Amino acid sequence: MRAAVMRDWSLRVDDIAEPVAGAGQVLTQVLACGICGSDLHMLVHGEESRRLSAEMSADQPPSALSPIMFEPHIDTVMGHEFCCEVLDLGPGVSNLKQGDIIVSFPVTFDEQGVHGVGFSNKYPGGYSQRLVVNEMMSIKVPNGLLPELAALTEPLAVGVHAVEKSRIAQGDAALIIGLGPVGLACIAELKMRGIGPIIGADFSPRRRALAEHLGADVVVDPREVPGIEAWRKIDGQKPLVVFEAVGVPGMIEQTMRMAPKDARILIVGACMQEDRIHPMLGIGKELSLQFVLGYSPAEFGSALSAIAEGKVDLSPLITGRVSIDDVPQAFKDLGNPEEHAKILVTP
Amino acid sequence: MRAAVMRDWSLRVDDIAEPVAGAGQVLTQVLACGICGSDLHMLVHGEESRRLSAEMSADQPPSALSPIMFEPHIDTVMGHEFCCEVLDLGPGVSNLKQGDIIVSFPVTFDEQGVHGVGFSNKYPGGYSQRLVVNEMMSIKVPNGLLPELAALTEPLAVGVHAVEKSRIAQGDAALIIGLGPVGLACIAELKMRGIGPIIGADFSPRRRALAEHLGADVVVDPREVPGIEAWRKIDGQKPLVVFEAVGVPGMIEQTMRMAPKDARILIVGACMQEDRIHPMLGIGKELSLQFVLGYSPAEFGSALSAIAEGKVDLSPLITGRVSIDDVPQAFKDLGNPEEHAKILVTP
Repeated sequence: MRAAVMRDWSLRVDDIAEPVAGAGQVLTQVLACGICGSDLHMLVHGEESRRLSAEMSADQPPSALSPIMFEPHIDTVMGHEFCCEVLDLGPGVSNLKQGDIIVSFPVTFDEQGVHGVGFSNKYPGGYSQRLVVNEMMSIKVPNGLLPELAALTEPLAVGVHAVEKSRIAQGDAALIIGLGPVGLACIAELKMRGIGPIIGADFSPRRRALAEHLGADVVVDPREVPGIEAWRKIDGQKPLVVFEAVGVPGMIEQTMRMAPKDARILIVGACMQEDRIHPMLGIGKELSLQFVLGYSPAEFGSALSAIAEGKVDLSPLITGRVSIDDVPQAFKDLGNPEEHAKILVTP
Repeated sequence: MRAAVMRDWSLRVDDIAEPVAGAGQVLTQVLACGICGSDLHMLVHGEESRRLSAEMSADQPPSALSPIMFEPHIDTVMGHEFCCEVLDLGPGVSNLKQGDIIVSFPVTFDEQGVHGVGFSNKYPGGYSQRLVVNEMMSIKVPNGLLPELAALTEPLAVGVHAVEKSRIAQGDAALIIGLGPVGLACIAELKMRGIGPIIGADFSPRRRALAEHLGADVVVDPREVPGIEAWRKIDGQKPLVVFEAVGVPGMIEQTMRMAPKDARILIVGACMQEDRIHPMLGIGKELSLQFVLGYSPAEFGSALSAIAEGKVDLSPLITGRVSIDDVPQAFKDLGNPEEHAKILVTP
């Protein structure tokens, strides 16, 4: 089958072996799969990130729940934001049938252990024609929701989790720095929770427009008005929670520098390189940095429900659709924030 | 009067002008003043810290509550952990009288604004014979408590605040990395709150013995057994709160590296230099870094009460007593953790 394959940290389109559904698993046809910024990062900073993960594992006791790491010299098919149609059932599958449209928490397990779908040498992700997931990790897409919108479950779940982890409550204000898919997902979830004011900051006019569509009360170009100034102007009193959703070196320091006293800073942008901070910035203002990753199965389900029930309209986030053959070009195109938010692979 | 004076980031003993008690203030005789590690840091890293503070102030709206910064080329008498006897009353003082033994929240205010006692060109700190504080910020020392023990109110308050800020609760475990006065104060407060197990890690046998005296359940030399291993061995199940009380570059990264998933890390050691971290260490384990500084007036009062009521015995922390003339030598001696924990200046 056709797939966009990562090997030695570079991406090419190739024909690979068909996956086979094992016990408790289903083989599915990929209908739509979003391209995630972390996959772009992976190509550039994957080796450094991998080395760090290996070091971290060495410091920790082994856990049966840690995903098996992929080997970069062997084919890996990325893509973890997928919506699929069930084609074939492995042994023991009882609640799914052929033709079901599903999304799945992007983790698959078998007798070897746990595998991240899209970060595994064994289980291809959604930049391919077909993939295998566990029935137990899958949810049927309800309400006849379009697969393209269902594929946005995963990125929205990232926002649901970040907001949950932030412990933000009515009476707090939120500033979101960086209005890519992660920042926008945070805004969508904050709006659904009735938090306000929500201030968004990004260089791109298109992304600022998307943030307004999703519920930001004020959006600013930080070259003209720093986000923190916008907060001071319209509020400046409520406790502030800052979501750092850029994820490049220097952003944590910059956010610490601008944050007001006692601010909580959520690190939702995944900076894969070494970074520099001045601890005194944090000490002087008693800041808290909460790093976040992923989401729980419950948060994943809650994201799907919000989309299916029409609580949030994510359709404007979809700024492009490409075939598998065009995935390498789409990775390049995503470098232009004015052009794109979320590109879907529709095999 | 005699004082240990900081000028151009170096310490010398000199004769300086007597301070005068203004409205609402009292002139006091210093009975005992602890030498704080941050004063040692200040001599070495003060310029960098000062530059950063100036930059931070430029990013923030002016606040009437920000202390006026000292000018390093003008005399500053450090020392903010003091216990004094009231000598003379300024206009309008009504609740204090000559001979009262007091401690004071180390902040003084007047018509110019707020001054940090020990970090001010105008108000000398406790490395001098006499100092001036506001009546409103002072507390009479109760129960005939010895001035030397009352002088430990301030360092204990740092621990009271850090523990409060950590939101640690019954059922959590605590690991304290670095058993200098700040780490020891955290242990004392954790013990008073009935938290356990408490694990302490430090290279110095003497400091480890002090930690045990104050309530640590297990102490380790991290060259032999990393603190985190000790936690795994005796517990490993309870949610872990880690107190980083070393405060030198590299310690935040090292703590992030060893911390288990979901750990809260309290940054109580004040690293005044630029530091490097890998954000992915925090992201992968969803760590939280809470930076802390100082204490509230209520926490300061609570620390004094705990000492005065005998809830905690801090006397073994006092490892030396020096005159003002010997302060520069004491600064050097404090570099040896095997020799010293807290040196008191007893003018």
